[in-house]
Amino acid sequence: MSEAELSIELKLEILKEKHNQIYDILVENEIDCWLIFVRETEMSPDSIMELVVGNAVVLQSAFIFAIENNKLKKIAIVGNFDANAEKEKQIWDEVIGYTLGINELLQQTIERYNPNTIALDYSKDDVSADGLSYGMYLMLEEILHKFKERFVSAEAIIRALRGRKTKKELEFIIKACQITEEINKRTTTNLREGLSEFEIQKMFYESIEDANVGYAWQKHQNPMCDAGPNKEFGHITPQPNIYTKKGHTLHNDFGVKYHGYCSDLQRMWFFGKKEEVPNELNHAIKTIIQAIQLAADSIKPCLHGWEVDKLVRDFIKMRGYEEFKHSLGHQVGLKAHDGGVLMGPLWERYGGSPNLLLEEGQIFTIEPSIKTQNYGMVALEEMIIITKDGCEFLVPPLKDFIYIE
Amino acid sequence: MSEAELSIELKLEILKEKHNQIYDILVENEIDCWLIFVRETEMSPDSIMELVVGNAVVLQSAFIFAIENNKLKKIAIVGNFDANAEKEKQIWDEVIGYTLGINELLQQTIERYNPNTIALDYSKDDVSADGLSYGMYLMLEEILHKFKERFVSAEAIIRALRGRKTKKELEFIIKACQITEEINKRTTTNLREGLSEFEIQKMFYESIEDANVGYAWQKHQNPMCDAGPNKEFGHITPQPNIYTKKGHTLHNDFGVKYHGYCSDLQRMWFFGKKEEVPNELNHAIKTIIQAIQLAADSIKPCLHGWEVDKLVRDFIKMRGYEEFKHSLGHQVGLKAHDGGVLMGPLWERYGGSPNLLLEEGQIFTIEPSIKTQNYGMVALEEMIIITKDGCEFLVPPLKDFIYIE
Repeated sequence: MSEAELSIELKLEILKEKHNQIYDILVENEIDCWLIFVRETEMSPDSIMELVVGNAVVLQSAFIFAIENNKLKKIAIVGNFDANAEKEKQIWDEVIGYTLGINELLQQTIERYNPNTIALDYSKDDVSADGLSYGMYLMLEEILHKFKERFVSAEAIIRALRGRKTKKELEFIIKACQITEEINKRTTTNLREGLSEFEIQKMFYESIEDANVGYAWQKHQNPMCDAGPNKEFGHITPQPNIYTKKGHTLHNDFGVKYHGYCSDLQRMWFFGKKEEVPNELNHAIKTIIQAIQLAADSIKPCLHGWEVDKLVRDFIKMRGYEEFKHSLGHQVGLKAHDGGVLMGPLWERYGGSPNLLLEEGQIFTIEPSIKTQNYGMVALEEMIIITKDGCEFLVPPLKDFIYIE
Repeated sequence: MSEAELSIELKLEILKEKHNQIYDILVENEIDCWLIFVRETEMSPDSIMELVVGNAVVLQSAFIFAIENNKLKKIAIVGNFDANAEKEKQIWDEVIGYTLGINELLQQTIERYNPNTIALDYSKDDVSADGLSYGMYLMLEEILHKFKERFVSAEAIIRALRGRKTKKELEFIIKACQITEEINKRTTTNLREGLSEFEIQKMFYESIEDANVGYAWQKHQNPMCDAGPNKEFGHITPQPNIYTKKGHTLHNDFGVKYHGYCSDLQRMWFFGKKEEVPNELNHAIKTIIQAIQLAADSIKPCLHGWEVDKLVRDFIKMRGYEEFKHSLGHQVGLKAHDGGVLMGPLWERYGGSPNLLLEEGQIFTIEPSIKTQNYGMVALEEMIIITKDGCEFLVPPLKDFIYIE
C-alpha cells in the first residue's frame, strides 16, 4: 500500500490534533465564527479542507467553527450522501444533511450563533487562505445577506493552523525529508558522466516507486534535474539532450509526499574530484552554504519574513553576485509551497506575505541561488523548523558538492 | 509507466485540439476576451487550466484569449521561472515572463486589446467554471479597475470547451470505460459469499494497480462497494464488517482515470441463481434498466437537462418507488463530475445547471437509483455520448444482475 497518502486512522488523528488548535486561534484573532463554504471539492478544492475535514465533498457544504459560551462548536452541513461519512468521523458536534438545498439550513445555523465576525477563506496575499471561489462568495452574499458586513478574511486563522505543526505533522515531514535523502543517496551510486537529465529523472522515478511514496509536486518537474552550465534553474523540465559531463555539476530539486506531508530539498553533484572544482564554482557553493547557515543562525520567532530574506540576499550581493530572483524560503506542509508567511523580498508579486511574522512550529525551506558566469546555477535547499528561540535543520544540511569521481 | 496521466506529447495534442475550439466558442458567446487568472495552482487550481494550459504555475499568471481583427491571440503572462516551459509548448502567440510583479504587464496587455467584455472564471451555477478565487478577483478589481464594468462570467465558454469532446478525448474516455469493465469482469471471477466490502475494495485496488491506471475520484471511495440490504448508497466507504451473502446483492460505483480522462460506472451482482432473485429485487432492477433505456431513447441535443431527469424520475415514481435523491446524470471528462449542464431536478442545490441545454459531443452518466423495502438500494450507472440526433452508450449497458452462483 502506498505511503503517499494518509491512512484513514492517521488522518482522523491529525484532524483531531488540528481541531484542538482552532479554539485558541479564534480567540487570539478575536473571531467568533469561521465558515468554510465549498462544493465538488475534487474539482474545486479549498486547501484547508485537508486539515479540518479530511475528505472531498460533493454538494455545497458548510463547515462552521463557532464560539458559544467560551466553547468551540463544530457543525458540518453537507449533502445527504456525504452526511454519513461526516457522522462516522465523530469530530463534529452536529452534522446536518440535506436533500434540496443548503441555503436555509446555513442561514438558520448562523442566526443561531449570531456571530460578530464571520471569517471566510479569502486572501489577496496568501493563496493557502484563498480557497473560497468568487462564485461561492456571491452565493454567500445572498444566503447570508443580513451578515454581509460581518464577513472578514480567515487568513490569520488559516496561517496559524497550517503553520503550527503538530507532533504528528512534524514526524511525517521529517520522515519525508529522510526518504528524500535516501533516494538521493541511492541515485548517487548510479550517477555517471553521459547520462541525460531525462535518464536521471527516470532513475529517481524508480526509487520513488520503490519507496512507495508520492510526489510533493507535479511529477514531470519532480525531481527537476539540471545538468551542466547552460540550464537556467526553475520550472523547465529535464531534457533528453542535456547530459552530465566531467567538470560539470548536476542539480536537483526534489520532494516526496509521505502520509500526505511534503519534503522539498535541493542537492548538487560535481562530476570529478574535489580538487578539480573550478574556483568560480567553489566560491559559489561556499557562498550558498554560508548563506544557508547565516539564515539558520538568524531565524527565530517574531522576525518578519522579509528580514531574513534581506539579510541573506545582501550577503550574496556582497559576495559579488546578482541577487536571486525568487524568495529565500517558503513554508512546507501538506503542500510543498504551503502558503502563509514567506521569507521573501517585498516585491509586488509576493503581496503582504513577507511582512508577516515568523512563529514557533513553522517549517521553512532555505534556498538561495547564484548564477555563475561559466558553470550555470548553483543552489541548495534545506528545511528547518522554527523553535522557541531559533531553528533546527530537519535533516543535516549539505556542506559540499556530492562528488562523482 | 502509469497510464493514469497524459504523457507530455499527448497533453500537447489535446491542448492544441482544445485551443482550436476557442475562437468559435468566443464568437458564439459574443465575448472578445477570456482571462484566466491564477497562482500556485498546485494548491489552488482552476480546473480549466488542465484543458488550456496543461501544467501548474507558481506565481500569479494570466492566460489571455483575445479576438483581434477576427483572429484569436493567445498570451501567457507568467513568473520568470515558468516562462521557459510556456515558450517550449509553442501554443502561445506571446509569452511574457516577469520577476517583480504582474500588475502592470496585465494592465498593458488588456489595454492593448481593449476588449468589450472580459470573461472571468466565476459562476454560481457551474463549479467547473468557478476557478477564480475571491482573493484573486479582488486583485483583478484593483489591477483592471478601468475595465471592471466589462467583467462577465466565462461559464458559457468553459461549458462549451469542457463539454464538446474532441476525438482524442472521446477515445480516452471510452478506453477508461473499457478498462473499468475489464476490472469488473476480472473481479467477478473472484467474488464469493462471505467477503467483506473492505476485502472486495482491496481486490479492486489490486486490479487497478495491475492495469496501471488511476482513480477517477478519491481512492477510499473508489470503488464504493455496497453489500446487502442495510447499506444506504452514497458517500460511505466500504466497511470491514459488512459481508456478501447468498440472496443479497453487491453494488459498486467505480471509475478509473486513463490518460487523464475518467470513467464512472455502477454495476450490481446477485449472490445466487437468476431464478432465486426475489420478486421485489427483480422488479427494481428491471425498472432501473428500463429507466436507463428510457433516458437513452430520449436524450438528444437542445433538451434541457431537467427534462430528461423529470421523465425518468416520473417513470420511477409511476413504478411505485420514491424518487431518487440525486440527479439522473452528470457530465464526465477530466473529472468524474465534470460540471456544466446537469440532467438533474430543479432543486436549489443544483442552481441553474439543469436549466442548460444538452449539446452534441457531451458525455453523460445515466444513474437512476431505487430504494427497495427489503433488499437495500438498486442502481446502475451507464455512460453515453450525445450525437447529432440522439445518444450512444460508450460501453454496452448492463441488462441484468451479474450472477455469482
